[in-house]
Amino acid sequence: MATQATASPDAAYEELSARHSDTLARAIEAVSTRESWSPFSDSPSSKIHGAEKPAEGQAAFEAWLGKRYEIDQPGIAEWIGDEVSPYTRQPLGITYPRSEPAALIEAGTKALASWRKVDFETRALVCLEIAQRLYDRNFEMAHAIMHVAGQSYVQAFAGSGPNALDRGIEALAYAVKAMRDVTPHAVWRRKFGPDDVALEKHYTIMPRGLALVICCASFPTWNSHPALFANLATGNPAIMKPHPIAIFPVAMTVKIAREVLSEFGFDPNVVTLATDTREQPVAQAFIDDPTVQIIDFTGSARYGSQLENSITKKALFTETSGVNSVVIESVAALPTTARAVARSASLFSAQMCTSPQTIFVPEDGIRTGDGTASPRDVAQALADEIDALVENPKAAAGVMGAVQAELSMDVVDTVRSKLAAREDVEIVREASPYPHPEYPEARTLTPLVAVVPAELEAVYADEQFGPVLFVVPTASADDAVARATRLAKENGTIATYLYSTNEDFIARSTDAYEEAGANLSINLHGSMWINFAAAYSDYHVTGLNPAGNASLADLAFVASRFRIVQRRRPE
Amino acid sequence: MATQATASPDAAYEELSARHSDTLARAIEAVSTRESWSPFSDSPSSKIHGAEKPAEGQAAFEAWLGKRYEIDQPGIAEWIGDEVSPYTRQPLGITYPRSEPAALIEAGTKALASWRKVDFETRALVCLEIAQRLYDRNFEMAHAIMHVAGQSYVQAFAGSGPNALDRGIEALAYAVKAMRDVTPHAVWRRKFGPDDVALEKHYTIMPRGLALVICCASFPTWNSHPALFANLATGNPAIMKPHPIAIFPVAMTVKIAREVLSEFGFDPNVVTLATDTREQPVAQAFIDDPTVQIIDFTGSARYGSQLENSITKKALFTETSGVNSVVIESVAALPTTARAVARSASLFSAQMCTSPQTIFVPEDGIRTGDGTASPRDVAQALADEIDALVENPKAAAGVMGAVQAELSMDVVDTVRSKLAAREDVEIVREASPYPHPEYPEARTLTPLVAVVPAELEAVYADEQFGPVLFVVPTASADDAVARATRLAKENGTIATYLYSTNEDFIARSTDAYEEAGANLSINLHGSMWINFAAAYSDYHVTGLNPAGNASLADLAFVASRFRIVQRRRPE
Repeated sequence: MATQATASPDAAYEELSARHSDTLARAIEAVSTRESWSPFSDSPSSKIHGAEKPAEGQAAFEAWLGKRYEIDQPGIAEWIGDEVSPYTRQPLGITYPRSEPAALIEAGTKALASWRKVDFETRALVCLEIAQRLYDRNFEMAHAIMHVAGQSYVQAFAGSGPNALDRGIEALAYAVKAMRDVTPHAVWRRKFGPDDVALEKHYTIMPRGLALVICCASFPTWNSHPALFANLATGNPAIMKPHPIAIFPVAMTVKIAREVLSEFGFDPNVVTLATDTREQPVAQAFIDDPTVQIIDFTGSARYGSQLENSITKKALFTETSGVNSVVIESVAALPTTARAVARSASLFSAQMCTSPQTIFVPEDGIRTGDGTASPRDVAQALADEIDALVENPKAAAGVMGAVQAELSMDVVDTVRSKLAAREDVEIVREASPYPHPEYPEARTLTPLVAVVPAELEAVYADEQFGPVLFVVPTASADDAVARATRLAKENGTIATYLYSTNEDFIARSTDAYEEAGANLSINLHGSMWINFAAAYSDYHVTGLNPAGNASLADLAFVASRFRIVQRRRPE
Repeated sequence: MATQATASPDAAYEELSARHSDTLARAIEAVSTRESWSPFSDSPSSKIHGAEKPAEGQAAFEAWLGKRYEIDQPGIAEWIGDEVSPYTRQPLGITYPRSEPAALIEAGTKALASWRKVDFETRALVCLEIAQRLYDRNFEMAHAIMHVAGQSYVQAFAGSGPNALDRGIEALAYAVKAMRDVTPHAVWRRKFGPDDVALEKHYTIMPRGLALVICCASFPTWNSHPALFANLATGNPAIMKPHPIAIFPVAMTVKIAREVLSEFGFDPNVVTLATDTREQPVAQAFIDDPTVQIIDFTGSARYGSQLENSITKKALFTETSGVNSVVIESVAALPTTARAVARSASLFSAQMCTSPQTIFVPEDGIRTGDGTASPRDVAQALADEIDALVENPKAAAGVMGAVQAELSMDVVDTVRSKLAAREDVEIVREASPYPHPEYPEARTLTPLVAVVPAELEAVYADEQFGPVLFVVPTASADDAVARATRLAKENGTIATYLYSTNEDFIARSTDAYEEAGANLSINLHGSMWINFAAAYSDYHVTGLNPAGNASLADLAFVASRFRIVQRRRPE
């Protein structure tokens, strides 16, 4: 929808408020009740979006191939881009501006001076306009996500579209709540000695500085929209640094954000793009600059931990990764539980920070509706469910998508070699490609399933970023929980899963998960992915274990992104 | 007031809620409206407190002299204490337990396990009970503060009693607000494919870990009550580390806190005392321990900056110090303005983090009700007001109190030598002791006043922790603001002051102060000290300049002290 350039912040407020203030109010309500809500639909059905939009979106993305992705930002030194589609294994050939860090910092600093004076309610509405425009072009985004990250079309549409925008609006809602909590004005009266003192006080919300957002490769939007919107709302210009293998979704976000900013009369340099290459990473140049005061990072535990160990005097928010465990104590029907776990481990070929990896099962077996099942039986049931999925390549494609990076293939290969070398390991299902019905060249891999002994922590207790499921026999169900929660505490976890028909067991296990700072899903089955995390409702990352220091989203995610400066004088 | 030991957390809640829930509600309202409110009276008048309490309080403090200050906490290795009264220059002879850090950490970790399960509303009420008991014994605290910090009796009673407790309750109010913002429970429903999914979700508030509170010497309670209460409310046991020259006020707080905790059936090791000596400081042992996750520090900029530059992976809240400036552009009556500034610089002999130090005055002079006044005239007016105060030793004693440490005497001495060596400096008033009417041995010092050239930043732009006022002529009034705000940005500031009868000048100056993250008081005169900071209303420290990274109190001060862990399951 085209909009006339708006003359003043006040006019921008009026126009944007008419469009989005209801959404903002509903979002603020949703983060409080944590009930299900979204202003968007996460189904790509043309019944919802109209017959043309899907094809238009695909065409819009494909029109970029081999071209420059024009973003008119300062200090452009060259045009770079190395993205390769995991579906076609062909380079996209799209290039993006690489600006000198000094130029982006200078432009951001200038932008901060005017952006901080824009009322935060208006800034929040600008974010909602950016979200709406991203949603309007979400079919284009979905194809981009497919071809840089490898997500399936359906997942790309939902998980990197509305679900990601919701996560961003959730953070925005918290930012607005936190700032509304600061009264802009007070009159303070009390007696001091003989005097009746009356002071008029003003409290000004101040941004902290520039914000660097380091985006990950597999979920570039879901993980960066929250930081982007939280920063913009609190007045901090955002420098978006995409992963060099997944630039497009971030570049598209930046381009749309800049268009909205310009259109409403604001400095577009409130949002800029900082591209780099793996050979010449640029993040540190921003981190070292004193004007950069906020850093959000999503990505590897290794780099995340390096940032956590080195950054001082800045606000740092990290979401890295961990080992997600499943404990199975007893089930009503093994195939149902196996399906839930197997499908979730197959989703996006386990390239999600919530994918289950390590399944603890008591060595004496678990009670099921059909008698006892051994750990080996559990592994077989998982393998069967994966096989059933793979037998239907169209369904498999919709679930597994493609493997983004060759590195993940290597990870699974290395794991397999380690397992094969041991006599006490049984590989129940080999990892193998599935034939993608639409893209014959797609890099695909279905999960490996193995039963491995509890002492093999070196393998199953490390995050293996690729499709692999370890079934680990334990001395008892309580031992399973002890191991799962120790794993969470020591190596980090983002999601844990527990299956039991025994309420006493569930009750006595809960505490250990809380102690480990592990978000827990209990007895989830059925059509919802067990690793689905709903914005406005499910907190993502607790900050209590090594999988990250920040949560999406809570007050802590936003409250230190701004400061308050006061002035007072006699009334 | 004696209380029966309470059997259960629920019973504790009922009893404490009856006593304090109104106070909590009022405090939460006050931090929102930021209007004047306190549940306490900050006057020591016996009309309010009864005829006996003042004498009883003094006797209670004096009864400790030369004795062990018994605190029954774990791991006591020895009894130490080196406090010397700035009034009598005699050792207090009180000794306090020095516990091994490992023992305090072990006890704190154990206490955390039970304390985290106490409902946060109950935890908050426990804090209010601690506050009430401290208030009930505030005459004893006032005498302790006098004899360890050197504050005057009246200031000790108010500033280290009710004003400090208010600051603590303010932080508590924010902590409760932030935790109430997290719904404990939600039911989430949406359709997934063919399934109607309904999930029951629980959200648990979790503490981060142990909290170390490093207290300062000059205002041990005002600066540590907020951290103590914020930590306790959010479930983090607090290890209170007093400055080795000002242990008593912190030890008294710890003792009362432990009594309240025990009385209501909680683990007293939720609050412990970590004493040390200047020769063998103990803070780092706690900082290095991974169970310690929160550190609050008030004290020197040097140590604060060392902490800010070295601490990673922990929440760190600092309030250090800075150079507080006054800009005088024009005044209605010079003596009135000079009195306001001079008295505030005399208060507690300028040993306050809000004391004004450096006064910028346009070299061409300022407009006053009586014509133009030069920088020299301003300096003289300040000197006259100080002289007037000193002429009345009783009034002087009530304002200036004593100088806590010999170091501050040396600071002023060194400044004087530097100034005397220069021809372009005029010392308008010498720093000199005043005779304390009650304590002839008291270490006292009245402010030095000098006119120093703008280029002498090496002296006036550093915090000189002692009574000294520099008048600095500037090229213009705008240059004065430019210098004051640059000083704030580069060297840190906690309070800045501006005097002008010109509304245009005030309006155009405001922005620069905001940019510098400097809280500004404009045209304050009269009975209220211009550097008085009111809890619930005045934010203390912005976090935007080197004077500290945290503010008393806002959501950022509390929001990252706790985390949220969720679990979900089918409804």
